[in-house]
Amino acid sequence: MQTSQLRVAVAGKAALAASRRLALLPRADKDAALLSLADALEAATDRIVAANGKDLARGESAGMPDSLQDRLRLTPERVAAIAQALRDLAALPDPVGEVVRGSTLANGLQVTQVRVPMGVVGMIYEARPNVTVDAAGLGLKSGNAMILRGGSAAASTNAALVETMREGLTRLGLPADTVQLLNGGREDVTALITARGLIDLVIPRGGADLIQTVVTQSTVPVIETGVGNCHVYIDAAADLDMALAIAVNSKTHRPSVCNAAESLLVHQKVAADFLPKVLAELGGAGVLLHTDEQASAAAEAAGAAYEPVTDEDWATEHLAMEMSVGVVPSLDAALDHIALYGTQHTEAIVTQDRAAARRFTAEVDAAVVTVNASTRFTDGGEFGFGAEIGISTQKLHARGPMALQELTSTKWIVNGDGQIRV
Amino acid sequence: MQTSQLRVAVAGKAALAASRRLALLPRADKDAALLSLADALEAATDRIVAANGKDLARGESAGMPDSLQDRLRLTPERVAAIAQALRDLAALPDPVGEVVRGSTLANGLQVTQVRVPMGVVGMIYEARPNVTVDAAGLGLKSGNAMILRGGSAAASTNAALVETMREGLTRLGLPADTVQLLNGGREDVTALITARGLIDLVIPRGGADLIQTVVTQSTVPVIETGVGNCHVYIDAAADLDMALAIAVNSKTHRPSVCNAAESLLVHQKVAADFLPKVLAELGGAGVLLHTDEQASAAAEAAGAAYEPVTDEDWATEHLAMEMSVGVVPSLDAALDHIALYGTQHTEAIVTQDRAAARRFTAEVDAAVVTVNASTRFTDGGEFGFGAEIGISTQKLHARGPMALQELTSTKWIVNGDGQIRV
Repeated sequence: MQTSQLRVAVAGKAALAASRRLALLPRADKDAALLSLADALEAATDRIVAANGKDLARGESAGMPDSLQDRLRLTPERVAAIAQALRDLAALPDPVGEVVRGSTLANGLQVTQVRVPMGVVGMIYEARPNVTVDAAGLGLKSGNAMILRGGSAAASTNAALVETMREGLTRLGLPADTVQLLNGGREDVTALITARGLIDLVIPRGGADLIQTVVTQSTVPVIETGVGNCHVYIDAAADLDMALAIAVNSKTHRPSVCNAAESLLVHQKVAADFLPKVLAELGGAGVLLHTDEQASAAAEAAGAAYEPVTDEDWATEHLAMEMSVGVVPSLDAALDHIALYGTQHTEAIVTQDRAAARRFTAEVDAAVVTVNASTRFTDGGEFGFGAEIGISTQKLHARGPMALQELTSTKWIVNGDGQIRV
Repeated sequence: MQTSQLRVAVAGKAALAASRRLALLPRADKDAALLSLADALEAATDRIVAANGKDLARGESAGMPDSLQDRLRLTPERVAAIAQALRDLAALPDPVGEVVRGSTLANGLQVTQVRVPMGVVGMIYEARPNVTVDAAGLGLKSGNAMILRGGSAAASTNAALVETMREGLTRLGLPADTVQLLNGGREDVTALITARGLIDLVIPRGGADLIQTVVTQSTVPVIETGVGNCHVYIDAAADLDMALAIAVNSKTHRPSVCNAAESLLVHQKVAADFLPKVLAELGGAGVLLHTDEQASAAAEAAGAAYEPVTDEDWATEHLAMEMSVGVVPSLDAALDHIALYGTQHTEAIVTQDRAAARRFTAEVDAAVVTVNASTRFTDGGEFGFGAEIGISTQKLHARGPMALQELTSTKWIVNGDGQIRV
């Protein structure tokens, strides 16, 4: 057995033992633990910020871009925000034990489906330290033991965060193995995603390459997250002021995340009115436009930076201040375009026409379909889940923002008084 | 591209086109189609029974055991029962469009989670022809296009059934590709389970080897079904008459299926009273007993056939008239035994003690946990689902009997009036 496999096997068995205790913990104990861990993290601010400093120094000398350094950086204020997220989790309802459905059968059997924890959840992610604490907290609240594999760029930070939480759990008499950290190389990822029978679920969160590797190589059940080639379609019957605000917000509010829009489709009936305004505003905000013929002319007139759009552009999740823009002859053409290029994440229509909105919401196959609102609302926090462990773009088990409920399975309880099959 | 991959690619694209129409079909149209297909199958009884005769003749000359020939055999009565199952499906509620949850957010956005079809579902199963029609009917009702890969032993029968249904769909103006049959060899299975992006879900249904192959090699999301090493635990506080009936029914009512019990654990406090009765009855029914020391003595005294139980016996799903029997010193020992050997399918306790029942239902990690009832009730029909496409033994998406609801995903619909993120 290779070292990584052995390490994952040991971690998996320790996590199983922890998960069996977590599954039976009453909500009050879990909430008290979350509040206590929040205090412990704040009390350890100096240690955490110092560890983070090591990661930042390593990143800087390795030429890490400023935007990534910013994502990695922890300040006392950011540590406080991370701790606060655990307190917010304590205030949310406990999904475990919720009765999903049930009935009394003709033979008198009482059949009840209740939520139970998944068990042991593996999480593979990149260099955002807040994910480490969010995942541990969501796991604890939903009764799951978490095995975390964060990005190597955040190794020292993650070690300090996880050690602080493990020490806090031990002080409370709870299993430290509620949260474990794998710090080995790529082979740890391979060992984790092939540890069938030890790991109940793996959630990859990060770039398209990471997710592709996990979903194709894993023998453990996976929830695919995140690639969002999201479209905003401006219908013939759109309110054009609303359309302008939604298109610009969807693209520019936070271009580096999966619910940012990548493509803008404009119905030809409103293109002559709408394109000059929207392209001037997008161009003025610094968005590089990838434009079809009509949009190119409008971009030229508006003085916005543009390039002719290619098939590859339409298929690309830029995650940057770039947007593909084109004119479509009809709602049908927009639906076809989205079916061809979309990644089933978030798709938006702007329209005042009820029939168009009904067709768009019925026919677009995506986790979230939005009418007259920014694509940026696809988010666990925005949806009122209080937290988020990722956004599922698959259809099995969870679709869209995932939080506590999505970290649970169910169990059927059958109560009888001697029933047998006849 | 290999032939099988090409065949699956073509089938997958045809299924996608069909699924896009099915997703929008109103319930009335789907129910009318189910009733019409039921009539078409009955009208084609001669053709179906003749095709089945070819499979039976091939099986007989290949030395197929009688029990398998019986599973494969179709009579006019069995064809009528298969057709009736489609009519029963028509009477069930449509899962598509059901609102799962929703809310109005503080910013006025209306957020609604609704059930939608999975899309394209692959199903791999063995030689039971009724599964072919059940799967097609469940797919149609839930708005999914089905790609079926049945056992080669039933190839002629399945072809006749699927052709009859495809002709019926065409007559109704519905897409024939609502149901397709792959009749190639093993390589068709491999092509199907690696057609990521074309197939939304694969459900394997059959023996442990088939399921193991699919779950470890698939890159398409899978729902694992079926292996059931189910236990009946007779607690110290059991009503022993009830315990006798439940133990015997769980083992002998239909020993070849996954919800049949394979092991009997008896608390030592009642072992001296209970073992002689239960082993005499099991032995008398023709069950070969695999017994620990105390149970061996009781089996000897009862004149029942027995062998000393091995670790391998405890881990085996016999699917036959065999049962492992042992005495445990406590409820804890029973829970540990089930955690070690169980397959998370169905586990039963017989007890009059509320505390024991509460611990057992809380601590046993299984799809179905039963108190004072036979393990044989783990079944979609028995649970009132009206149909069943398999019994999931995994935790992701579906756990326990799966029917129409388990063949759906969800979609979030967000309705706004111009909201943007600030």
